[in-house]
Amino acid sequence: MNHEKIWNDILKIRAKAPLIHNITNYVVMHSTANATLAVGASPVMAHAIEEVEEMVAISDALVINIGTLSKSWIDSMTRAIKIANARKIPVILDPVGAGATKLRTQTVRMFLKEYNIAILRGNASEIKSLCDETHKTKGVDSLAKSEDVIDYAKELSKRYNMTVSVSGSVDVILKDQKIIKVYNGVPIMSKVTGMGCMATAITGAFAAINADCFVAAAEAMAVVGIAGEIASQMSRGLGSMEINFLDTLYNINLNDIKERLKIELYDK
Amino acid sequence: MNHEKIWNDILKIRAKAPLIHNITNYVVMHSTANATLAVGASPVMAHAIEEVEEMVAISDALVINIGTLSKSWIDSMTRAIKIANARKIPVILDPVGAGATKLRTQTVRMFLKEYNIAILRGNASEIKSLCDETHKTKGVDSLAKSEDVIDYAKELSKRYNMTVSVSGSVDVILKDQKIIKVYNGVPIMSKVTGMGCMATAITGAFAAINADCFVAAAEAMAVVGIAGEIASQMSRGLGSMEINFLDTLYNINLNDIKERLKIELYDK
Amino acid sequence: MNHEKIWNDILKIRAKAPLIHNITNYVVMHSTANATLAVGASPVMAHAIEEVEEMVAISDALVINIGTLSKSWIDSMTRAIKIANARKIPVILDPVGAGATKLRTQTVRMFLKEYNIAILRGNASEIKSLCDETHKTKGVDSLAKSEDVIDYAKELSKRYNMTVSVSGSVDVILKDQKIIKVYNGVPIMSKVTGMGCMATAITGAFAAINADCFVAAAEAMAVVGIAGEIASQMSRGLGSMEINFLDTLYNINLNDIKERLKIELYDK
Repeated sequence: MNHEKIWNDILKIRAKAPLIHNITNYVVMHSTANATLAVGASPVMAHAIEEVEEMVAISDALVINIGTLSKSWIDSMTRAIKIANARKIPVILDPVGAGATKLRTQTVRMFLKEYNIAILRGNASEIKSLCDETHKTKGVDSLAKSEDVIDYAKELSKRYNMTVSVSGSVDVILKDQKIIKVYNGVPIMSKVTGMGCMATAITGAFAAINADCFVAAAEAMAVVGIAGEIASQMSRGLGSMEINFLDTLYNINLNDIKERLKIELYDK
Repeated sequence: MNHEKIWNDILKIRAKAPLIHNITNYVVMHSTANATLAVGASPVMAHAIEEVEEMVAISDALVINIGTLSKSWIDSMTRAIKIANARKIPVILDPVGAGATKLRTQTVRMFLKEYNIAILRGNASEIKSLCDETHKTKGVDSLAKSEDVIDYAKELSKRYNMTVSVSGSVDVILKDQKIIKVYNGVPIMSKVTGMGCMATAITGAFAAINADCFVAAAEAMAVVGIAGEIASQMSRGLGSMEINFLDTLYNINLNDIKERLKIELYDK
Repeated sequence: MNHEKIWNDILKIRAKAPLIHNITNYVVMHSTANATLAVGASPVMAHAIEEVEEMVAISDALVINIGTLSKSWIDSMTRAIKIANARKIPVILDPVGAGATKLRTQTVRMFLKEYNIAILRGNASEIKSLCDETHKTKGVDSLAKSEDVIDYAKELSKRYNMTVSVSGSVDVILKDQKIIKVYNGVPIMSKVTGMGCMATAITGAFAAINADCFVAAAEAMAVVGIAGEIASQMSRGLGSMEINFLDTLYNINLNDIKERLKIELYDK
């Protein structure tokens, strides 16, 4: 993975405009739809149990985000994941708030045990709480650092044979023996509501056009971090930060990625 | 319909601030509320079956948008449409994603058959799929062009005695023997999530103060297109495009409309 | 209450980042989450009856907003308020649209009668309609002025032993014999969807770190008004107004408050 590979995958997204089916939370539906469009993919939101099957059937990736979970949505998510597994399109799961309530933690564990999740994409507290019963999440905010939860992420990755992508001041993406650390990004990104959810939606876009989910997940976090860096330079606060992030993502080019990409690959 | 007529109707909206009841999708609730306010009307969102009757009873138009449909919302939409028909206030229906799933296609057909819809406002794929069982919609994106579905729109308009307003690079609005084509607008508008839904909400505002729904629908699309053109000149991407669209709509004046309006009326 | 007290409370919010549990309406979830983050607190949205108890248990304030109410949400709100009362964390209630439908008016009355609400925060029509059965609200817009409903607000405050905070061109906050009038703010604020809901969310942040809910409510309205004034000077319309409001709130400093604070305290 290097800047040229990332750029080629962005061009692929823009050329193919893959359809990304999102069953996500109310808070971020609008911003994740725009983030998906900004990277060049096509979002659709559909949660009714009567229609998720047909919607997954025309989609290129499924993004599940439990940020405002409820029982009826769990049923729809479950059916959508089943169909996605049968169709072999990648499922990207954002365990928003896992560790804050049993409903969230147990729902994510159930998804991980029963179905094939291609990429688990959360913050450090969420990832840790899925292994360590005692660890708590402060609502949807992390109380841990991504680099401190690598062993938990490895454990989950191994147990469920999936890529784990942990966001933080350093993003950690891992699968099997491989780890990519992404050093791009700026602190204000954590102050914009739904920034993590946008990263997950964008991960869905990369996974839709790249069969290697480990690389797709890392590329997404790099692009998000780079767009965040550029956007922050023209932003006065979290309001303009979100708008500038979307604009920057929409306009990102090879040179932006080449100049800014800061990653390390560990392959033992 | 000319620039002075459009401007007078905007002044009417601003003076009366008609109440527009929206039962719409989660993705666009915030942006359509702001679009409704920007044109000078007053939005209210209410979907509980227990209160839709009372809310419709104080409203000047009802906007129904099926973008994130579910069974219980269909019940509320149905009741709201019934009351709106009884009160003779215009119902504007946006068939978001019709053609992508049976739930959406069949719900729209049921509304059209059972109730009086004043204006059907969708993209070309949605409109076509309501006539042609074999036509598909890519999630919420069109796979057809508005000018290629005029015969389908005419058929629907005739069958259900309503105005059909098809958005696209050229917007086509038709009723009976009359067609208005609106050439205003810019391509980036299709990249902003909910732009079509905002057009539908704004159509509701015009229909609330203009008894001629054909003219109201065309005026709305012209104003949306013109505001989009002006906004695009100061926008760097889809994030700022949405913000500038709202700002421009809020500030639009007679001169903007006079200088930019590009429409053709066909009356055979 | 003066500019130094307000500033100290902002510093407290920023230092502690209290967790604010919001059960709010779909339209404003995104903007109220951002407003909560902008003032320095940490928002969480959770409405499932299965998880509200645990979420309230880790929160520092509970914000209830009935803007898109439905039966199942009333159940979750009720359970959340019960737990918040048991834990003695403040409950802030925004009666959005009370006076427009019975569902809204009666739900708010039930909450007021059965539970301890620390701060009732609404517009003048909403407040009046809770006392006067004949008064109507135009959807979610006020048909009355805050200064004209002071007697109703006093009556509610006395009856339910709570602070009442009425937004308007002049904000009126009252409890017992004390009234604070806040003269900060600009008219365009009423044109931004969810501005009142953002004020309520910010009230939750102040109440989370200040045991005196009367002062907390007044501080919140002053900060909202001041941020609105500054933001309006750089805004072209309601779209940029919302973004600049969030940015300004994020950057607000002692000097902004000192220079602009315009309040009157009445203590009889």
